[in-house]
Amino acid sequence: MLEKVDLDRKLSKEVFKSTWPNLMDELGMAQRKAKELGIPVMIVFEGWDGAGKGTLMNELIQALDPRGFEVHNVKSDHEPLWPPMRRFFQITPPKGKIGIYNRSWYRRILDGDESDKVLEEITSFESQLAQAGYCIIKLFLHISKKEQRKRLKALEENPATAWRVTKEDWDNHKRYDKIAQTVERMIHQTDKGYAPWTIVESHQKEYATVKIGQSVLEQISSAIKRAEAEKDISPARFSGLGLRKDTRTSILRNLNMGLSLSEDAYRKELKSCQSRLREIQYHLYKLRKPLVIVFEGMDAAGKGGCIKRLTQNLDPRGYQVVPTAAPNDWERAHHYLWRFWNSFPKGGHIGVYDRSWYGRVLVERIEGFCTEPEWRRAFGEINEMEDQWADFGAVIIKFWLHITQEEQLRRFKERQENPLKQWKITEEDWRNRDKWDLYEEAAEEMFMRTSTPNAPWVLVEGNCKRFARIKVLKEVIKMAEAKLKL
Amino acid sequence: MLEKVDLDRKLSKEVFKSTWPNLMDELGMAQRKAKELGIPVMIVFEGWDGAGKGTLMNELIQALDPRGFEVHNVKSDHEPLWPPMRRFFQITPPKGKIGIYNRSWYRRILDGDESDKVLEEITSFESQLAQAGYCIIKLFLHISKKEQRKRLKALEENPATAWRVTKEDWDNHKRYDKIAQTVERMIHQTDKGYAPWTIVESHQKEYATVKIGQSVLEQISSAIKRAEAEKDISPARFSGLGLRKDTRTSILRNLNMGLSLSEDAYRKELKSCQSRLREIQYHLYKLRKPLVIVFEGMDAAGKGGCIKRLTQNLDPRGYQVVPTAAPNDWERAHHYLWRFWNSFPKGGHIGVYDRSWYGRVLVERIEGFCTEPEWRRAFGEINEMEDQWADFGAVIIKFWLHITQEEQLRRFKERQENPLKQWKITEEDWRNRDKWDLYEEAAEEMFMRTSTPNAPWVLVEGNCKRFARIKVLKEVIKMAEAKLKL
Repeated sequence: MLEKVDLDRKLSKEVFKSTWPNLMDELGMAQRKAKELGIPVMIVFEGWDGAGKGTLMNELIQALDPRGFEVHNVKSDHEPLWPPMRRFFQITPPKGKIGIYNRSWYRRILDGDESDKVLEEITSFESQLAQAGYCIIKLFLHISKKEQRKRLKALEENPATAWRVTKEDWDNHKRYDKIAQTVERMIHQTDKGYAPWTIVESHQKEYATVKIGQSVLEQISSAIKRAEAEKDISPARFSGLGLRKDTRTSILRNLNMGLSLSEDAYRKELKSCQSRLREIQYHLYKLRKPLVIVFEGMDAAGKGGCIKRLTQNLDPRGYQVVPTAAPNDWERAHHYLWRFWNSFPKGGHIGVYDRSWYGRVLVERIEGFCTEPEWRRAFGEINEMEDQWADFGAVIIKFWLHITQEEQLRRFKERQENPLKQWKITEEDWRNRDKWDLYEEAAEEMFMRTSTPNAPWVLVEGNCKRFARIKVLKEVIKMAEAKLKL
Repeated sequence: MLEKVDLDRKLSKEVFKSTWPNLMDELGMAQRKAKELGIPVMIVFEGWDGAGKGTLMNELIQALDPRGFEVHNVKSDHEPLWPPMRRFFQITPPKGKIGIYNRSWYRRILDGDESDKVLEEITSFESQLAQAGYCIIKLFLHISKKEQRKRLKALEENPATAWRVTKEDWDNHKRYDKIAQTVERMIHQTDKGYAPWTIVESHQKEYATVKIGQSVLEQISSAIKRAEAEKDISPARFSGLGLRKDTRTSILRNLNMGLSLSEDAYRKELKSCQSRLREIQYHLYKLRKPLVIVFEGMDAAGKGGCIKRLTQNLDPRGYQVVPTAAPNDWERAHHYLWRFWNSFPKGGHIGVYDRSWYGRVLVERIEGFCTEPEWRRAFGEINEMEDQWADFGAVIIKFWLHITQEEQLRRFKERQENPLKQWKITEEDWRNRDKWDLYEEAAEEMFMRTSTPNAPWVLVEGNCKRFARIKVLKEVIKMAEAKLKL
């Protein structure tokens, strides 16, 4: 395919001068319109060494309002303590802004890893963003081997730029034909309708500049048309709940909610579990593996108490408790998983989530804070994210703390009557209580669709707080021991 | 996950009697509404041997208008002469109808092939259909090992049904736990937002019947809501064309349109090529590999003449020319690739396409016969289809016959003046001619996005008919020799 590209394309100065200024105006207008509609745009610059990425990016930027874009230089070096896609998720633009990438997640392939895993992770990344309305533009700046040689020579011969040419550049130049095959495969496998590649003939700067401008304009315009067509639809907010009670799954109703633990047994177990956990924390650190612990459950189920016992004896430099509330404006401007990629614990550390990304398929689903296609998609998106974390070596365990409706009522009343605990109970808690059945149903669907060997759900009978806390500690220990092969 | 399912679920006769008749009415209404909106629905029944697929399917069917559904019994045996997904594509329902599958494409996995390839093909199949608006419902009927044993025994003890229990059934029964692991992996990997799995606890018939009814009703209702929300939008019909001529790719304009061949050389080459082709046809037959040859190109580029020379000397029992016109009503009621899966040549045969599935990204794109997301998606969908064919062993080659605008004008005039050829030229040809630039641009994007090592585009300089015909023959021979290792 690359061989079909005509690299002799040129624009005369006159044509350039009569084209580019108008195009710049149009790009500026498209940027404003995309901002108005809240469309996030990502523009990827990949290409051969010496193809002029920096120069051409700079030309494009001249057309844009500098308050509306951010340029990201992506280095080859990866972050060994984080799952590979984290650093790319972090630099996705918020709504209405443009992210420009000088090299990108495609470094992973171009640096030599063509495995299915890398391909899957990139595809998952782009498709999750595209589904959420991101406009993804990918440019490959193409020059011939001969042109590359000419440019490297020219740089070397100029004393001001000679330092820029490294031995690696020449090594890569020698491997041009082999790299070209990798590029072909990469483009073929990642050229998707929602994130297409454009090959830019880059021998002449004027030509390449205009082609880049036109391609970017075309794709943003198309995203604008789509967004405008969809602007006036109020999307279906169908929670998909309401199977008659008779035939719903009954995972939660089958829990033995009478399970309990005596004060004595609790004290003893707590001590031994907590010291084992401390040991495990050191193992994690030595092995540089992160541990992710998620807590979900009904209000007043005792999440806070469990988290306290879990972390009480840990080295505070090695863990973080992440409380998850409704997203703030900045988080809301990003993909809904963005904040969780951001807070992911690095290798050797422990992240404890007090509520989590599962809010998407619980409260957001039930309250209609997201649309039906969004929460339906979320099961798979979450599985993809957790799979990537597990592949990276993370130990993941997810707890659903359960209490009966009667026990919840008892705890609510206690909170209301106790001046020290009154802050813990709000009107919203009472409203949620009315939706008990809906939450049970949504939770059970969540267990079925997102409990995986690498990130299982553990259901905790929580009417007796002592029992629940010890079960949580033991399950964390068991999981960590198994995954770390202790 | 399967172990979390509570298999003791039952419905009392009273509850069943008060629930099921209403549910049947609602299912009937949903079916009528889906028909009205043209939603195709697919309901998959998978599950353990002895789980009662036949019985439960029958209960569901009672609720439906028999003119609106079709039941397909899927056997394990595959069709060795066709790509594996063909037989499933063929039995997808048309718009507004329901296809019910007693076992399905998941047989491929459950019969023991858990390879990535199978998984990819199934994912591609379901996601292409879902994108086109298909409602895909997948049920897994679950029973315990103990229950399975009880049912097999009962069948054996009854003289009327003993014959139904085979040695294989008992062998599978013994492997229950191992199969359960395969089922878990399969469900996890194919449980998508657009095609979710529902586990049906199937120990009691009443319970399972109502659960199936409710799940089907819920998913069809949800598809109806989506379709209604989208009914009033006129989708963006943006052809994405119109890059200024200066910076468009110039693949076609760089062809050497002066290439020609003398009458003498033509005669000689034609004879030798045609006899080699005949040999190749026998090799194909012996190796049971299909050969797919696609012709696209401007009007009057000489497709017919090429096809004639290509097939002139072939064994007529082994090839078929498939002319592709605008889809008829029945074809239009299916997925746009359905008719091409249907006409795919079987192993050992040759299929010659006079225009093809590429109409989606040429005429349909330019004329707005499909929406922008549809044609953008098509590049990837077509690549997936051709990849599956190539994996199966098909030899695929695609020709773009090109002529200059001047040559086309000459040929049009000649046709108009020659009473024997007047039928070949219509008003539409003249209209298409006005869109020459748009077709060139769409064709060049098509080459870039769909030329792959396994299914390359070959551009043919067609101003001299003799030259074009010989080039086509030689390229077919070259490709076949390479792929068949002759």
